[in-house]
Amino acid sequence: MNRGFFITFEGGDGSGKSTQIQKLKEYLQSKGMDVILTREPGGTAISEKIREIILDPDNAEMSDQTEMMLYAAARAQLVNEVIEPVLNSGKSVICDRFVDSSMAYQAYGRGLGDMVWEVNQKAIGNCMPDLTILLKLDPDQGKNRISNRQQDRIEQASSDFHRKVYEGYLALEQRFPQRIKGIDASRDIEDIFKEIKDMVDDLMSRTV
Amino acid sequence: MNRGFFITFEGGDGSGKSTQIQKLKEYLQSKGMDVILTREPGGTAISEKIREIILDPDNAEMSDQTEMMLYAAARAQLVNEVIEPVLNSGKSVICDRFVDSSMAYQAYGRGLGDMVWEVNQKAIGNCMPDLTILLKLDPDQGKNRISNRQQDRIEQASSDFHRKVYEGYLALEQRFPQRIKGIDASRDIEDIFKEIKDMVDDLMSRTV
Repeated sequence: MNRGFFITFEGGDGSGKSTQIQKLKEYLQSKGMDVILTREPGGTAISEKIREIILDPDNAEMSDQTEMMLYAAARAQLVNEVIEPVLNSGKSVICDRFVDSSMAYQAYGRGLGDMVWEVNQKAIGNCMPDLTILLKLDPDQGKNRISNRQQDRIEQASSDFHRKVYEGYLALEQRFPQRIKGIDASRDIEDIFKEIKDMVDDLMSRTV
Repeated sequence: MNRGFFITFEGGDGSGKSTQIQKLKEYLQSKGMDVILTREPGGTAISEKIREIILDPDNAEMSDQTEMMLYAAARAQLVNEVIEPVLNSGKSVICDRFVDSSMAYQAYGRGLGDMVWEVNQKAIGNCMPDLTILLKLDPDQGKNRISNRQQDRIEQASSDFHRKVYEGYLALEQRFPQRIKGIDASRDIEDIFKEIKDMVDDLMSRTV
């Protein structure tokens, strides 16, 4: 049995990941594919408990290294319990955030640098996405889009932090051009999705 | 101001760490020293929340890498929020378990090997104990001693696992003979403490 496709979505808060993920899931299902959606941090019972600790605004005193390790812990469990077994069963996985989020938020945003990759490599082993879709939106625009919802500990961080995260994503796009495909996410939902569909069609045609 | 002493206690469950830590604290206080006791996993509000996830027997499906990352996360927070500030203020810290526990339980017990040190190095930076007292007790004897108390997820692990942890501790003692001092913990409480007192007196005489 062929291994399924592993597609991740990345981008700042308010960049429209959830909307596009839902549309991509429906598109793949319309082609007869089995698709599992999951998200980070979370996606397993243990990872959701870790998520609560990470995002709770009461945990303001959390050190950057602790944050990095907690994301890696949640990710290790998701890979082990969900992503690897699902891919191995021939189904595909779409994940809302994955290791690139740790790179953007902790390596670039928090300034922890290369140690973030070194730690995460132990969490994920060889489980890397086949395709990562990066929804690029200026962080101030993204913040405006989510201004009417309750914000978690990470969303509450400073504009300066979110600017560094955005620049981190742009750096990652440059660094891994084969895997990470950036899209201008300031446009119309359907225009964005058309581009995503082309990218995914291209991935599937390359790997058949 | 001189940095305080950082002393850690290691050993399997039932090896008598709590008793000896209490006696050492009283001894150091009787010499006019300021001493803070703490424990792992735990010792800060965030680390105690992480402890709950690690030790909850309901989390039986936890992957070894997740376990390793969670211990490292709890440790990073404890170092950042408690151990470093306390040592820098000139007070001493006695910690019930530290990085050697991760080496014994995850590197040797779970078989994760060197990655455990690589990850933990990012959690603790340069914050290593001045002295680590290893209470050596055959794991079957240790298990008997704690048989009448409720056991957490790690304590519930197999005898084979606890045997590997014990052998891991012996390997660490060989590997870091300057820092890790092993003591036969099958003996009388006072005999054990006399040996600990000598080790600590020696540490203080060397660093005055």
